[in-house]
Amino acid sequence: MWERLDTKFDHASIAQLDRRFRNLFINSLTGFKSANLIGTTDGNGVDNLALFSSLVHLGADPSLIGMISRPHSVTRDTIENIELQGYYSINHVNKDIYRKAHQTSARYHREISEFEAVGLTAERVPGMPAPCVLESRIQLGMKFAQKIHLDINDTDLVIGEIIYVNIKDDIIREDGYVDIEAVSSITVSSLNTYHETLALDSLCYAKPDRELASVSSGNKFVPGNDDGSC
Amino acid sequence: MWERLDTKFDHASIAQLDRRFRNLFINSLTGFKSANLIGTTDGNGVDNLALFSSLVHLGADPSLIGMISRPHSVTRDTIENIELQGYYSINHVNKDIYRKAHQTSARYHREISEFEAVGLTAERVPGMPAPCVLESRIQLGMKFAQKIHLDINDTDLVIGEIIYVNIKDDIIREDGYVDIEAVSSITVSSLNTYHETLALDSLCYAKPDRELASVSSGNKFVPGNDDGSC
Repeated sequence: MWERLDTKFDHASIAQLDRRFRNLFINSLTGFKSANLIGTTDGNGVDNLALFSSLVHLGADPSLIGMISRPHSVTRDTIENIELQGYYSINHVNKDIYRKAHQTSARYHREISEFEAVGLTAERVPGMPAPCVLESRIQLGMKFAQKIHLDINDTDLVIGEIIYVNIKDDIIREDGYVDIEAVSSITVSSLNTYHETLALDSLCYAKPDRELASVSSGNKFVPGNDDGSC
Repeated sequence: MWERLDTKFDHASIAQLDRRFRNLFINSLTGFKSANLIGTTDGNGVDNLALFSSLVHLGADPSLIGMISRPHSVTRDTIENIELQGYYSINHVNKDIYRKAHQTSARYHREISEFEAVGLTAERVPGMPAPCVLESRIQLGMKFAQKIHLDINDTDLVIGEIIYVNIKDDIIREDGYVDIEAVSSITVSSLNTYHETLALDSLCYAKPDRELASVSSGNKFVPGNDDGSC
């Protein structure tokens, strides 16, 4: 079904890959991804919870996050709810809940809440119309901003602004870094493989004329810093 | 400078965060990200190499990857080269080269190749006009497809198609999954912290009426499978 030249694939051999093989293969190639549960409600009492690995940081001021959705996927309800209600939650998947998170990707009937189906708890936050995941240790409340259709492959880029952050532990460093590994946030590769992490290093702001240093008790990372300190 | 309510931030307290604190903080919130080096050339003999953590899988057929670029950042040369030449490479950052990869984010003069400046090797691939990173074990050759400007915060979504894949080890499973952990691809949190990974599990395709199983020698993950096997 597919041509393998040493370990190289060219355009033609990629095109000839079996559809299911190709799906796992291509999804592996961008590298490690975040795993987040998106919580929404339909306005008629039915909550929805869907696993996304396609989130992307768009900017810090305003605080914007994008995510990719395919129109015919199981996550279509999520996008409909977001457009209808204007709000959604983003909840980090951690080591304790990744199997339940994966189970939300089953094609449940739309009258069924995935929260109940997989055994996660919808947490109501005052001022936030979308349900959060109680078992998640990093929860974001999002206000829908814009949906951009990508004609090139009929997907949608959904953009929202962060209006609420709840971090359930003392893991915010004084420079602003949030130690997401300390609350067991996990990472995903391809479509179905989950990984915990082990920190290697935090590095200082890089400058052309200076040897790279690690952030330590004596160093503090300052984005865009140009005063010679870390 | 910022208000902290328990561990909660609302819209107003996010807006009041110090700019540098906010940059590290907000960049932490999407979760773990991929770390990739983008290789380009300017057509006048100067190669460019830039670290991106904003890649996002857009689709497997056609095989499309998006990435976010801010117009005034150090990665501006990368986008100019991509538009001019039409090609770029994506190279996984691994445990052996993450410090050199981070160093590419220094603001080098545009006549200086970051390959040479940080000590990585530009690898020329026949048919691929953009330089790959020899030290990377997963290299993708990309053909530029489209740039979409996001007015909401003046960033660009750059979309390309995969036309070449080189995986430098025997890590492609028979179902198509690429074991990126086995070649020490790493993941990044916020702007400056690098992590290696430890696989927890590969899970079967989820179905509403069936208990979730792990992929093992007897199970094979089949995306969208509905015949009752894994």
